[in-house]
Amino acid sequence: MSNLIKDPILAAIFNDEKMKKINLFESPNLFCDVYCLKPGQSQKIHSHAHNDKLYYALTGTAHVTLGEETLPLAPGQLAIAPAGLPHGVENRSNENATLLVVMAPNPSVP
Amino acid sequence: MSNLIKDPILAAIFNDEKMKKINLFESPNLFCDVYCLKPGQSQKIHSHAHNDKLYYALTGTAHVTLGEETLPLAPGQLAIAPAGLPHGVENRSNENATLLVVMAPNPSVP
Repeated sequence: MSNLIKDPILAAIFNDEKMKKINLFESPNLFCDVYCLKPGQSQKIHSHAHNDKLYYALTGTAHVTLGEETLPLAPGQLAIAPAGLPHGVENRSNENATLLVVMAPNPSVP
Repeated sequence: MSNLIKDPILAAIFNDEKMKKINLFESPNLFCDVYCLKPGQSQKIHSHAHNDKLYYALTGTAHVTLGEETLPLAPGQLAIAPAGLPHGVENRSNENATLLVVMAPNPSVP
């Protein structure tokens, strides 16, 4: 049982080199990660032709890009990047930020 | 843009009759709902052969069943019901509870 209950905020680990992804669960259907961004870290804008991605802001404030727009995502807000929409995240703040991220299907597990 | 940013807690609506589901996004790949449970309300234990489900507790405390075990899910905790595992939720508390729920793939959109 215990491996099926997670505390995403406590799972966060930060890396000085780049944004860190902590995987909580994955299958061919989806992955669920915690993205951990120190100030200045980002995931560049990209898109997936066939995969939807959800960002749920846990702590701090990361900026999310969805298509042509970029805005801050506050804790408790959800950002949706449907398949085909360019998207990315960037921590423009002075504090660490964490996001719960789900993508379906999982591009890494065929 | 605005329809791609949601505040799941603010989206919650409670129904006296039964647990209410508020859809935030859906595609064939996934659905993302807010489950809104008044005290005593539940979703009975069931399973999906080919779909994974994630519950992220937003407010209040709902009990989640995963296989043979049932335990309270506190705000900030994530419960994972992989495909094939019986699962359900029940609000055994005296306060409303909300959960952010993702299922992939979406059984309702072929």
